[in-house]
Amino acid sequence: MQASVLLLKPKNLVEIIKIQTTILKSIHDFMTDRGFLQLMPVLTSTVTDPLWPDPGSTIEGTPKIKYAGRELTLTQSMILHKQVAVAMGLDKIYIMSPNIRLEKSFRKITRRHLFEFTQMDFEIKGASMDSVMSLVEDLVIYVLERVKKERAEELEKLGRDLKIPSKPFPRYTSHEMIEKYGKEWEETASKLHDTPFWVTCFKREFYDREDPERPGHYRNYDLIYPEGYGEALSGAEREWEYKRIISRITADGLDPKNFEPYLALAREGLLVPSAGAGIGIERLVWFATGAEHIGDIQPFRRVPGEEIFL
Amino acid sequence: MQASVLLLKPKNLVEIIKIQTTILKSIHDFMTDRGFLQLMPVLTSTVTDPLWPDPGSTIEGTPKIKYAGRELTLTQSMILHKQVAVAMGLDKIYIMSPNIRLEKSFRKITRRHLFEFTQMDFEIKGASMDSVMSLVEDLVIYVLERVKKERAEELEKLGRDLKIPSKPFPRYTSHEMIEKYGKEWEETASKLHDTPFWVTCFKREFYDREDPERPGHYRNYDLIYPEGYGEALSGAEREWEYKRIISRITADGLDPKNFEPYLALAREGLLVPSAGAGIGIERLVWFATGAEHIGDIQPFRRVPGEEIFL
Repeated sequence: MQASVLLLKPKNLVEIIKIQTTILKSIHDFMTDRGFLQLMPVLTSTVTDPLWPDPGSTIEGTPKIKYAGRELTLTQSMILHKQVAVAMGLDKIYIMSPNIRLEKSFRKITRRHLFEFTQMDFEIKGASMDSVMSLVEDLVIYVLERVKKERAEELEKLGRDLKIPSKPFPRYTSHEMIEKYGKEWEETASKLHDTPFWVTCFKREFYDREDPERPGHYRNYDLIYPEGYGEALSGAEREWEYKRIISRITADGLDPKNFEPYLALAREGLLVPSAGAGIGIERLVWFATGAEHIGDIQPFRRVPGEEIFL
Repeated sequence: MQASVLLLKPKNLVEIIKIQTTILKSIHDFMTDRGFLQLMPVLTSTVTDPLWPDPGSTIEGTPKIKYAGRELTLTQSMILHKQVAVAMGLDKIYIMSPNIRLEKSFRKITRRHLFEFTQMDFEIKGASMDSVMSLVEDLVIYVLERVKKERAEELEKLGRDLKIPSKPFPRYTSHEMIEKYGKEWEETASKLHDTPFWVTCFKREFYDREDPERPGHYRNYDLIYPEGYGEALSGAEREWEYKRIISRITADGLDPKNFEPYLALAREGLLVPSAGAGIGIERLVWFATGAEHIGDIQPFRRVPGEEIFL
């Protein structure tokens, strides 16, 4: 085997991709059993997720292309499209949504960042954060049980002792996490747990709903894997009223012009309450297989700060 | 219902997306039952499908972004990555692969072109064209039967009388088609058939295998839908020997430098014989639902020559 392929091919690739296949298949089985409709991804658009008021400290910028005399952004996440799809009468949707996020090269050391990845992004009309969190717990348990049962041989070859978590997963607020472990709580808390756990209430993007009864608190939630694997999923109840959305966009210092087609629908009162989340596929495969770095599960590595061979 | 959403939302969207969900689910069921492993898509790369020596008459050019000081192409198809994945020991693979092809605006009138779409792209080590064509016939029959059974109500609402084809589908060569219907045979022949049919032997991209016993003939195949829906799928046995690949690239007037990482593997003798195909998801949904234009099945239309709302 020559150097060029050795550079490309991760160790135990076939076992890893078998586990990935079981993960993907069990996600589709679970979501369709629960009555979700599957949309196709959107790759280019007039708007995309801003990823926070100023993601410049971790990403190089929003990727854009020119087409037919206009500029289109590549999808950083489909959050705004999910809200609009629900407003179109698609009450329970999911999408295998590839995202491009041009992560700066230092992110290589986190072991969990890729500059392109896929999230299973879902959204439910009228849902509460509790109902989404319960659904996600069922999903994670179902997928890991199928992997453990159908891919026992592969897990053994990888030396991975996969534990099936019990419902409900522990829940903390971000305030508790920061108090206990400091601002960089994610990796530390993840290492100290042996079960996935929830962290709620983050001040972040404008579309995550602020608690109307407790201003400055947020009805959003991240699922964190144990054993140092860190963030698995991120989700929230959504803002849907124009005056809330525009006030959040303005408070974040974002330019409303960049969200105009989406804001037009909000202005006309066409958005509806919803909640949802996105779970990273590569991170789930990484966690399930116990690989050292997330790039180690990819036939074609997409790790920031590394050479791109093919 | 206000104008902005009327512009966005296709008629009978919920019925169409229910049929799409059944199509996607039955594809996953079929492919995993047949032992295929699922890879994640590649969105950005150092190389992509050239789409032919000179696609300039129909597309604006290959989309590219800058990242970390280098230029990356967006995926026009994953053909070269499929060949390399098979060379890595992944013998039977499939990918739900989103492609960006910057189609010129006149393509709107074909009713079947989008500037972004997803193909279910698969590749099998050591396969022959006959075995791939037989597999595709089984797949198409299986998917359409499931749609007809599980979505009878939606089909009725759409007024779509979906016929289940029988195996084997008729086969013609491109030479026969051109002789009978002229150079623009695809739409005419499609309209005159009431069953999907195969057309084989096209002179096209360098990676499609030239018949070693009949130079100037090619071991590739397109599946054409009946009733005017046109091309469904495109596939081939592949070239894998360096001297064949480089001679084809050179004959096409392409610059070998643009394919160097792929050519390096071929040069080292690491590529292996394979065959495969890609079937367009949106075209399959369009055909199954009987929509007027392929854009009519999309919540977020991506039709060349049209406004992009969101």
